[in-house]
Amino acid sequence: MSRLQFAPDGQLRHLLSIDGFKPAQIHALLDRAEGLRSSTGGARKLPLLRGKTVVSLFFENSTRTRTTFELAASRLSADVVTLDVASSSTKKGESLLDTLAALEAMNCDLFVVRHAASGAAEFFARHAAAGVSVLNAGDGRHAHPTQALLDMFTIRQHKGADFGQLRVAIVGDLLHSRVARSDIQALSVLGVGELRLVGPRALLPDAFADFGASLYGDLDLALKDCDVVIMLRLQRERMRGAFLPSEGEYYRRYGLSESRLKLAKPDCIVMHPGPMNRGVEIASSVADGPNSVIQEQVSNGLAVRMAVMATVLGARTVQP
Amino acid sequence: MSRLQFAPDGQLRHLLSIDGFKPAQIHALLDRAEGLRSSTGGARKLPLLRGKTVVSLFFENSTRTRTTFELAASRLSADVVTLDVASSSTKKGESLLDTLAALEAMNCDLFVVRHAASGAAEFFARHAAAGVSVLNAGDGRHAHPTQALLDMFTIRQHKGADFGQLRVAIVGDLLHSRVARSDIQALSVLGVGELRLVGPRALLPDAFADFGASLYGDLDLALKDCDVVIMLRLQRERMRGAFLPSEGEYYRRYGLSESRLKLAKPDCIVMHPGPMNRGVEIASSVADGPNSVIQEQVSNGLAVRMAVMATVLGARTVQP
Amino acid sequence: MSRLQFAPDGQLRHLLSIDGFKPAQIHALLDRAEGLRSSTGGARKLPLLRGKTVVSLFFENSTRTRTTFELAASRLSADVVTLDVASSSTKKGESLLDTLAALEAMNCDLFVVRHAASGAAEFFARHAAAGVSVLNAGDGRHAHPTQALLDMFTIRQHKGADFGQLRVAIVGDLLHSRVARSDIQALSVLGVGELRLVGPRALLPDAFADFGASLYGDLDLALKDCDVVIMLRLQRERMRGAFLPSEGEYYRRYGLSESRLKLAKPDCIVMHPGPMNRGVEIASSVADGPNSVIQEQVSNGLAVRMAVMATVLGARTVQP
Repeated sequence: MSRLQFAPDGQLRHLLSIDGFKPAQIHALLDRAEGLRSSTGGARKLPLLRGKTVVSLFFENSTRTRTTFELAASRLSADVVTLDVASSSTKKGESLLDTLAALEAMNCDLFVVRHAASGAAEFFARHAAAGVSVLNAGDGRHAHPTQALLDMFTIRQHKGADFGQLRVAIVGDLLHSRVARSDIQALSVLGVGELRLVGPRALLPDAFADFGASLYGDLDLALKDCDVVIMLRLQRERMRGAFLPSEGEYYRRYGLSESRLKLAKPDCIVMHPGPMNRGVEIASSVADGPNSVIQEQVSNGLAVRMAVMATVLGARTVQP
Repeated sequence: MSRLQFAPDGQLRHLLSIDGFKPAQIHALLDRAEGLRSSTGGARKLPLLRGKTVVSLFFENSTRTRTTFELAASRLSADVVTLDVASSSTKKGESLLDTLAALEAMNCDLFVVRHAASGAAEFFARHAAAGVSVLNAGDGRHAHPTQALLDMFTIRQHKGADFGQLRVAIVGDLLHSRVARSDIQALSVLGVGELRLVGPRALLPDAFADFGASLYGDLDLALKDCDVVIMLRLQRERMRGAFLPSEGEYYRRYGLSESRLKLAKPDCIVMHPGPMNRGVEIASSVADGPNSVIQEQVSNGLAVRMAVMATVLGARTVQP
Repeated sequence: MSRLQFAPDGQLRHLLSIDGFKPAQIHALLDRAEGLRSSTGGARKLPLLRGKTVVSLFFENSTRTRTTFELAASRLSADVVTLDVASSSTKKGESLLDTLAALEAMNCDLFVVRHAASGAAEFFARHAAAGVSVLNAGDGRHAHPTQALLDMFTIRQHKGADFGQLRVAIVGDLLHSRVARSDIQALSVLGVGELRLVGPRALLPDAFADFGASLYGDLDLALKDCDVVIMLRLQRERMRGAFLPSEGEYYRRYGLSESRLKLAKPDCIVMHPGPMNRGVEIASSVADGPNSVIQEQVSNGLAVRMAVMATVLGARTVQP
């Protein structure tokens, strides 16, 4: 996949996963996001993607992620097409590839794809015409690379660029989480000091130990002296299966409460990709408390997505 | 609520209801709408809100009102985000306030809210971050302030700014109408000469007499010598309850026919917020007749919404 | 209808069907499309419709056609309003004409209408205010004029402007196809050398012979020495009626396979309005083969729609 993502000259062409990224490539994207963030402080529009067309292809609903991508494109002055997938030609029996080809023929430049099937964005990228880019906005359990980038951006902002000094815990349903997978890869690339993965045994795949992570069943132990805690959203529908006890029991064992947070370092930051289940994986007082950077994550997500879009479309940053 | 709407320096920050407005404040908004209306006569775009983002949050469907708000924002060069409320994160269990906070974190500046619950827009305004404004596009039976402003704009245009000279009748289901509530408040603030409220007894709350209005059960009596008649839309679903007789019977007693209109002054203007039930509350020949200003109301609605948006976001009017 | 389409000075005001067009009028539109196509080669935006508002009124779903129209409008810098017809005021009992009037009062300039009823676009045009234009994006079985124009554009590009030299076959369900109707009219206006209409007897109306076309039941005979083959989309729902045999049987008799295509001239171009049923009316190897210009049709569709929009709104082409 990394050969699909990068052009021979090292230029990012698609963003499908964090797989294959080098530390400098991640930092370059974060630097660009930082530049864009300050230049849009006054909510100014930048002409970087003027005349470009961005297609939003969300086969899975996600108002929040879709909105940040569309806003990021608008702020860069691109035209945005939101394809109503439910009523699209694919219902008339047209293949996805024919739909893609038709949109390419209309001079669309960038496809933002979310799909329930792992590998969907890669499938699009593999068949995209020259000059067309694909961004993965979440595919099955596989990857959510812009979320990982915005999480790294947020950590770097608060803790500096030397990830080797940091102790990070990711807590929750790691088995089904594409956010966790992409965060783990990104932290691993950036050489995180210590990575702790925490959750019910059934939701904690052994394979993650390959990334040098330690697996914890006990949240109290795992939180000790952490610099960063990333709480995952609990997919309530998992509850119905055999995986999980009740919501109350889940909160008792894996919910982040104020008293529990005291086990981490005093300046530990608390992150969550949203939307949150307050009182299930996180206490409201923690979500809104002084250690929480959850709102900053949303705001950083906009800057990071602008940076990724401008980069894959080869837009040079101009003086605004 | 008026303390929520206005900043300490008197600047309008949110528009939630007409409650608390002073006559000069209403006239200032109408003056601004008048200026915008003439400057966009050639359908020109103004750069007043360039770089600003307006979020359209319609929990109740209303193509017409939603479209005017979104067009008003576009004409002022704002970016518009239409949140598909039906498929939004609130369905995933996220609270409305978390959705609001996420959108604020994406640098959204203005929320246009329509909701079936009275007080919904105020709820949003109460929790909005500094620098973020909320416009009420209709909440339950409570208020529809931009409709009231465009109605006042239309009356002023035809009858002049001295409302003390005017005899105005509002006809229909006043009990359930947010348009009526906001119109009554606005007319009262502007010192209307005489206000007549007309409808079936069960739909005519006594409390309205507090505004100095007279209550009428007989439309013929009420129309006598009126300068302005505002017909309300009949919510057909009310018909099923005990409130109302059949549509035919309603038209016979409260429908505005050509012959009935002759009871008013010859230059009486006829208004309706739309969409109309032709043949139920108003005859087609009146709706399309020489006294009707119903199409002007729609057109004025665009100018008034542009004025309100520019005002709450503190955009100074520049020479276009 | 032609008197409705053209102003007394010959200026195109609405585009409802190809009926009434003169050859020079078609060529003028294609010339303008060609100019726009080259000036937007770099996906640049043109300011031709800046400040204008285009309303997309799709009563029938069609992601592909709707998207090209909306993109065409955006590329010309117009504001685009997509009316969600399913949830519009017409559901509240408002008449279509009142909806149209309200949108006109908001200074909307151009309505793009698709509707299942033949004559729907004409109905809108007949009631449109002065200065407002209507484009037919497909009405029932009646007409799809922008598709015909983009098809003529594509043929002209490959075969030159002298249609008298050309032998063209249109293949499939001609009875129900508005594309076929508009293509036949356009080819007839442009003086096509020979026109062959091919399909199952029950789907081949005798009336088409009036256009000087020859009717064929046998595809092999009809393809002989053709310069252009236009394959029609098979509406699968027709299959249920008595009209057609199975899909397999249809493909065997009327599907365009590689071996069959050899009966036409070697440089014969293959066209299809999309979306395609691969393996039903056309083999995948033909759709993606060297004679296929199907992707070009999509791309040309954008240019042609930009040309039509700019023309009906009287936008003079400026130096971009």
